[in-house]
Amino acid sequence: MTKIVIIGGVAGGASAAARARRLSEDAQIIMFERGPFVSFANCGLPYHIGGEIEQRSKLLLQTPESFLARFNVDVRVMNEVMSINRHDKTVCVKNLLDGSEYHEHYDFLLLSPGAGPVVPPIPGVNNPLTHSLRNIPDMDKIIQTIKMNNVEHATVVGGGFIGLEMMEAFHQLGIKTTLLELSDQVMAPVDKEMAGFAHEEIRNQGIDLRLETALSSVEYIEETSVANLDSGESNEHQHINGHLTLTLSNDEQLSTDILIMAIGVRPEIQLAQQAGLQIGALGGIYTNEMMQTSDPSIYAVGDAIEEKDFVTGTQTLVPLAGPANRQGRMAADNMLGRHEKYQGTQGTAICKIFDLAVASTGKNEKQLKRDNVPYEKVYVHTASHASYYPGAEIVSFKLLFDPHTGKILGAQAVGKDGVDKRIDIMAVAQRAGMTVEQLQHLELTYAPPYGSAKDVINQAAFVANNIIKGDATPIHYDEIDNLTEHQLLLDVRNPGERENDNHFEGDVNIPVDQLRQRINELPKDKEIIIYCQVGLRGNVAYRQLVNHGFKARNLIGGYRTFQFSKK
Amino acid sequence: MTKIVIIGGVAGGASAAARARRLSEDAQIIMFERGPFVSFANCGLPYHIGGEIEQRSKLLLQTPESFLARFNVDVRVMNEVMSINRHDKTVCVKNLLDGSEYHEHYDFLLLSPGAGPVVPPIPGVNNPLTHSLRNIPDMDKIIQTIKMNNVEHATVVGGGFIGLEMMEAFHQLGIKTTLLELSDQVMAPVDKEMAGFAHEEIRNQGIDLRLETALSSVEYIEETSVANLDSGESNEHQHINGHLTLTLSNDEQLSTDILIMAIGVRPEIQLAQQAGLQIGALGGIYTNEMMQTSDPSIYAVGDAIEEKDFVTGTQTLVPLAGPANRQGRMAADNMLGRHEKYQGTQGTAICKIFDLAVASTGKNEKQLKRDNVPYEKVYVHTASHASYYPGAEIVSFKLLFDPHTGKILGAQAVGKDGVDKRIDIMAVAQRAGMTVEQLQHLELTYAPPYGSAKDVINQAAFVANNIIKGDATPIHYDEIDNLTEHQLLLDVRNPGERENDNHFEGDVNIPVDQLRQRINELPKDKEIIIYCQVGLRGNVAYRQLVNHGFKARNLIGGYRTFQFSKK
Repeated sequence: MTKIVIIGGVAGGASAAARARRLSEDAQIIMFERGPFVSFANCGLPYHIGGEIEQRSKLLLQTPESFLARFNVDVRVMNEVMSINRHDKTVCVKNLLDGSEYHEHYDFLLLSPGAGPVVPPIPGVNNPLTHSLRNIPDMDKIIQTIKMNNVEHATVVGGGFIGLEMMEAFHQLGIKTTLLELSDQVMAPVDKEMAGFAHEEIRNQGIDLRLETALSSVEYIEETSVANLDSGESNEHQHINGHLTLTLSNDEQLSTDILIMAIGVRPEIQLAQQAGLQIGALGGIYTNEMMQTSDPSIYAVGDAIEEKDFVTGTQTLVPLAGPANRQGRMAADNMLGRHEKYQGTQGTAICKIFDLAVASTGKNEKQLKRDNVPYEKVYVHTASHASYYPGAEIVSFKLLFDPHTGKILGAQAVGKDGVDKRIDIMAVAQRAGMTVEQLQHLELTYAPPYGSAKDVINQAAFVANNIIKGDATPIHYDEIDNLTEHQLLLDVRNPGERENDNHFEGDVNIPVDQLRQRINELPKDKEIIIYCQVGLRGNVAYRQLVNHGFKARNLIGGYRTFQFSKK
Repeated sequence: MTKIVIIGGVAGGASAAARARRLSEDAQIIMFERGPFVSFANCGLPYHIGGEIEQRSKLLLQTPESFLARFNVDVRVMNEVMSINRHDKTVCVKNLLDGSEYHEHYDFLLLSPGAGPVVPPIPGVNNPLTHSLRNIPDMDKIIQTIKMNNVEHATVVGGGFIGLEMMEAFHQLGIKTTLLELSDQVMAPVDKEMAGFAHEEIRNQGIDLRLETALSSVEYIEETSVANLDSGESNEHQHINGHLTLTLSNDEQLSTDILIMAIGVRPEIQLAQQAGLQIGALGGIYTNEMMQTSDPSIYAVGDAIEEKDFVTGTQTLVPLAGPANRQGRMAADNMLGRHEKYQGTQGTAICKIFDLAVASTGKNEKQLKRDNVPYEKVYVHTASHASYYPGAEIVSFKLLFDPHTGKILGAQAVGKDGVDKRIDIMAVAQRAGMTVEQLQHLELTYAPPYGSAKDVINQAAFVANNIIKGDATPIHYDEIDNLTEHQLLLDVRNPGERENDNHFEGDVNIPVDQLRQRINELPKDKEIIIYCQVGLRGNVAYRQLVNHGFKARNLIGGYRTFQFSKK
């Protein structure tokens, strides 16, 4: 009889327990969870705070009782594994309710401890109005603080998934919100010019977004102590009444009623480290493609581990729920004698930012630059479905690819409709090893309410292939600020589109439909830098000019891409 | 200077013209269109009739003038090519406005004539109240008839894309509608049990859906002739006032005010046939993978042609806009000296049926059976996104695959949210040659508003792989009516889910969470046919039973699949 011990009862751990039982009725399965809940919907926490998910109970997907009844898994909540003795194959467990300690033997151990919020040692950050959000108790505390402290202003530090979701939750509750982000963009998985769409949406919603701004110190000003001992409150559990004065890296000060620290997460590796398991260079528990740690009896999955990057083949840290769940299932397979190999993580991710979805898969341009990977990029901005059918929204799409082989390196999309779909398509295409040449031929669902006869993806592939084949010579938004006197900017949009200074200074304007008649107005001794709104008319003009012997380049993604890179 | 003549100015023809000009400034490009419009949104016609697309002008994507200005294409509407002289490389053209005829030489000819509605010779079908819908004039006539005849009841014959869209258009206008369909299901690209979801939706909306019912004859009862000559009406253009009495195949009679014939389309091959071009066995113009007909100077694209089926490699007829557009682009490439190969058509399709989307890609079960292709199938019914986040809808998903290699043969999905996305994912995976083994590892966008950590597709892949690996022994909904006395039906749902006779007769009910305790109630000498609502709990129960030595099978897709197969 195989005895499987699992540390951590959320995504990866819970998936492993259920799968292990389905494979074996007689395995003994024990799942330790130091918190009070197992298998809760951690991705749903911000949405309960914001009120979109009304019932807290909806977040509790399983209970120890339901796990026992359905899967015969011995779930021990409020039981924390304190250490692993690899020699004896035992774990030392502390029952957090009564303080007792005991040992439990294992044949296989699964580490699924997750990752904890990083809270840097900012002076004053430890105070009753500062929270991070990882689990149900954290969520409960935030909700309690919002109620008890009559929060009118909230500050969120960090523009990643949780930071953005908390920002939206506060906004949903009618709370004025400041979002501080150290870098020049939110949502690090996408590049800055794509994050620009998010910046605009965030500011349009009235959020005080401050990029390139860090939190330097926090002062907690306790206004009154209001523990109502008669009504059962204690000094720990009481009405909170106070506010925080934040000092920012630019020396500005900000008064706020609640502070959420969401600058990132760090793998929980303490147990693994103490047990002498290999830790990777990125600070996660090392695992091989079987999800085994450096000790073949110990597996690890989820946010705590380093796994293989699908695109680069190197080790990576990707704290996301999808990989965690699939890794858990696979670890169970392998503990029970199978030989399943994890295929690597692309880091496919999506975030809802008010009405906008921002999503990506594979590598972004920042990573490719850092790693000196040769790449080319294209942008398209095109309708989520037939533009003549109501409800179409622009999908802004960025495709990164190898300029020689056409291999897909990454994709990013932003918009109000159809963003998840386009990134899913790219995630599948990338995983399948497709090239941008093959993307042209994708045959996707089309009816006016759902798509276009030439989908966003087909269009992006056409542009990419034009570049690869030499049918287009691209110029990118980040080169426009550095043109020389040997180059001439040509706007082929209609004059109405240029109003309110919506064009590059010093350009010439000839609408594309007049270009053939007016082509002699252009100099042959300069390189013509053509642009339009999104790049499509620019390409028509580009083809005309080069076929007439001009030297020309077309601004990929058009003026719109440039515009949002500045947001 | 290459001279390209294009016959047909909509999807494929217009795409070819634009691409040809982008490749060559000096090519001479003439596009003939016998109708008054080019490049109109033919997929949008039913939605303008129904009022969703309010402005008729939105359907007119390009005009001859805009095509000339942007692409220098000589567009001749109301000019019909009457014959092709392949020897001289000329076409004979009739100007439909003045009746004159003339010849035009070509270096390359592109046939993009489309497909016309099939109207069988039903007695009485030629009358002023009977229409089919192919182009803008057809649409205008239908709109005029609705207005002039004060239509209160409409009848649509044919439950394909156009029939379903017209049904919905009438319903949108508050017109009582009957839909007649000869076969036992609407939406032929999906299988009957998947069409069952559409049947329920259609009936729930109050449509009089009559399956397995044909139209036998039509009687036109003209009530009054109301040509108002003073107001400019003539006998051809007048108020229509009358109704139709339809006789159906079951001898029933039906009175209706307008009749739409939408039983299907047939390739327009007359010109090609007269010119001696090869016609395929399915009745379309034969093309090779370069989009060339049997005459290398003549290319053909779109609804009129036979192309390669991506899955089977055999010739197929797929009258859809996506392939037509891509074929047109590719034909232009090849006419101008490139060597682009068409990669075959999967037949990816989607239809909006009220709030439901019904979509598919690849082969369906009917086709696989007909062609004796070995296949296995799985069904899942699971939430379009995290079920705890508002707005999740069930996606009902069917996956067809090779039971030995795991090759994807086809996929179908029905639901109110996320259907297009799932079929797009499958269309990409199939085109990339992925197996169901690989589908397990897909890493798709996940955040609660958009997906699930284990997406619909991952879940279907898990079920399929369980079958391939022998971890699951399936039984299908279509086998339940033929069980023997050696089999016992076991419902593992909760008693509440069985109310109102929502279970199989003669079954035993043990909820899955009680199964371990009550396992001895089950006989070991019978095969236990396990079922639950969608198949998930059934699998948990199945694994328990087989691991305890029982012989068992699990109903894939659960009771829900069975239920809808009867709708």
